Amino acid sequence: MLVIGIDPGTATTGFGLVRDTDQGLEVVDFGVILTPAGLPQEQRLVMLYEELKRIILLHRPESAAVEKLFFSRNVTTAITVGQARGVVLLSLAQAGLVVGEYTPMEIKQSVVGYGGADKNQVQQMVRALLNLKSIPKPDDAADALAVAICHLHSYRLNQLINSD
Amino acid sequence: MLVIGIDPGTATTGFGLVRDTDQGLEVVDFGVILTPAGLPQEQRLVMLYEELKRIILLHRPESAAVEKLFFSRNVTTAITVGQARGVVLLSLAQAGLVVGEYTPMEIKQSVVGYGGADKNQVQQMVRALLNLKSIPKPDDAADALAVAICHLHSYRLNQLINSD
Repeated sequence: MLVIGIDPGTATTGFGLVRDTDQGLEVVDFGVILTPAGLPQEQRLVMLYEELKRIILLHRPESAAVEKLFFSRNVTTAITVGQARGVVLLSLAQAGLVVGEYTPMEIKQSVVGYGGADKNQVQQMVRALLNLKSIPKPDDAADALAVAICHLHSYRLNQLINSD
Repeated sequence: MLVIGIDPGTATTGFGLVRDTDQGLEVVDFGVILTPAGLPQEQRLVMLYEELKRIILLHRPESAAVEKLFFSRNVTTAITVGQARGVVLLSLAQAGLVVGEYTPMEIKQSVVGYGGADKNQVQQMVRALLNLKSIPKPDDAADALAVAICHLHSYRLNQLINSD
């Protein structure tokens, strides 16, 4: 199964595509969608929408995962992140993808095995699980890969439970 | 000029279309886009997107206005409203509309003439300015009409200033 993980933001949205193979996890693509700070926010959302559609069309993922947000530095940030998140969810749903949502703690638990893991531990585990030579950069891309890995682990676990 | 005002929300998004004529303001349409609570949020965002596209295509407004949000009851609400707001801004920008944004205080100041006006005063003034027999219902539609009126007032004021 090919999963797209996304870490939404208006300025920077991280994405990561991970496939589940018999030899373990395999990274297919990752990176960030950047939108210029000088543009009105609605134009930045159009850019995000179009770029994400392009990535989905290119890789045709079978499932999607996005981090669940409960808190933020402040409410203005929450609205801005929410706006980008809305456009991301729209793009995924229009592509017929079911969206899995995971809290930061669930992602850490799934990737590192410990819900209190720090950022560096998560990034090191993402690198190791995907057999990469170095930590995927930038941070938002690594976060997107982490949520994709969490989704694949959760999918596998469900398959095991349902096959009993 | 025909303006669409929007009050975004995942469950209920209010919209209101107001035209500026030589005889004053004229209401063209108003109402709410409702999405069923039982659906996953990404499906609700697709419904909101499609319904809003339909309304824009039907009326072809020339300009758009949305309330600027600075605060909310809590951050989870802010993210949810932000998601709907992102989809609204995307739809408007894709239709080639420039989006005016106004704070609640600016809207009250513009509609009632007093930034500290209460909800009922705003609704009564919306009714009076649009020559309606009763207050437009539901509240989200009245709020959307108020932001459209604010946008038209601001546009007129700019024209006056620039014509000097």
